[in-house]
Amino acid sequence: MALTKSDLPPHARIRVGKRAHYDRKTVHDILDCGLVAHVGFVLDDRPMVIPMAYARIDETIYIHGAKAARIIKMNKSVPACLTVTHIDGLVVARSAFHHSVNYRSAVIHGQLRDVSDDTEKLKALIDVTNHLLPGRWDEVREMTNKEFKATGVLALEIEAATAKIRSGPPVDDDEDYELDVWAGILPVNTAIGTPYDDERCDDAELPISLGLAKKKFETRN
Amino acid sequence: MALTKSDLPPHARIRVGKRAHYDRKTVHDILDCGLVAHVGFVLDDRPMVIPMAYARIDETIYIHGAKAARIIKMNKSVPACLTVTHIDGLVVARSAFHHSVNYRSAVIHGQLRDVSDDTEKLKALIDVTNHLLPGRWDEVREMTNKEFKATGVLALEIEAATAKIRSGPPVDDDEDYELDVWAGILPVNTAIGTPYDDERCDDAELPISLGLAKKKFETRN
Repeated sequence: MALTKSDLPPHARIRVGKRAHYDRKTVHDILDCGLVAHVGFVLDDRPMVIPMAYARIDETIYIHGAKAARIIKMNKSVPACLTVTHIDGLVVARSAFHHSVNYRSAVIHGQLRDVSDDTEKLKALIDVTNHLLPGRWDEVREMTNKEFKATGVLALEIEAATAKIRSGPPVDDDEDYELDVWAGILPVNTAIGTPYDDERCDDAELPISLGLAKKKFETRN
Repeated sequence: MALTKSDLPPHARIRVGKRAHYDRKTVHDILDCGLVAHVGFVLDDRPMVIPMAYARIDETIYIHGAKAARIIKMNKSVPACLTVTHIDGLVVARSAFHHSVNYRSAVIHGQLRDVSDDTEKLKALIDVTNHLLPGRWDEVREMTNKEFKATGVLALEIEAATAKIRSGPPVDDDEDYELDVWAGILPVNTAIGTPYDDERCDDAELPISLGLAKKKFETRN
């Protein structure tokens, strides 16, 4: 089901531009192939923006951190804005004015809540780990009770979401196409390199999760 | 000169962790090789985080946008938090708990102000263009008065800044090194692809700025 502008709470009823999309699939796709999210919240009347690992389960995004981290310690429901951005290329135009960036971004609004239920928390921790390295949870040793307790998990239910996408060539002014100025796209890709071990692995095999991460996050324009 | 914790305004006197750096050069280096910043501000008591192109000149960061954009339209001095993050690799440990991400981030606090002085504004526009494509401003046709007026520029003076850097291999619990579990780094790089023109370039030569952008933004671990 596509969200329409009127489905959104007032704070999210933003200017609908030609690049804005509200359908769930577009938003989910952008979230699901992102490495980190930039999470914004208000602390002492000031905005804070911090990069965090995350995972989406249905309409909820989970983030986690040490219990000592400020965002975890706040320990109350606060409004947050979580943004995931992929840069796909630099848009090189014939005038400075028409330069742009090809990107896909998802901006999510909701309330952050502390996840206190152990079942939900465990599922979130598994998913945050597996988001970056698909299947990794089952490749490593089991989480201890102490580790479980030392980790805080917050949930952000998606109340409102906007995806923005710019793709394609530059759009120049008609008369500028006559100029002897090169215009086009300089692609920007995420490249997953060759894994290297920490030199204490003996004969441990390269895990399958690394190949799945490569498949998930690598982009080639 | 290195910023120390006590140089910072109260809102920025944050927990100093082992990954935190306050020296200007570290902060500037992270800002100067970033493609986009995530800019956070408060609108109607809610946090907003949006990706934006930017440029740093000394201790000021400039961002720009259409005059119609909300962040530009606010047209008053508001507190903002601007964060630039580079992801360098996934840290693959023997336990889920010790998984991490190798990254470099700069978190900047300050007040956003509208740039109304034409000289400062022009310099900022040149620098935002040249930040992404070094030297591009001189390769394109001159900006018109109409374009200049249609573009809003905001400045964020760096009041407080923190750089965080995680690098190196995973740090596992002593006893976990005995496990038959692979651990190491899965590198994540930014790769600049082969530029392609918009098929309306005739014989225009590939601009030098593209090669400089490749040199500036491409990372190889």
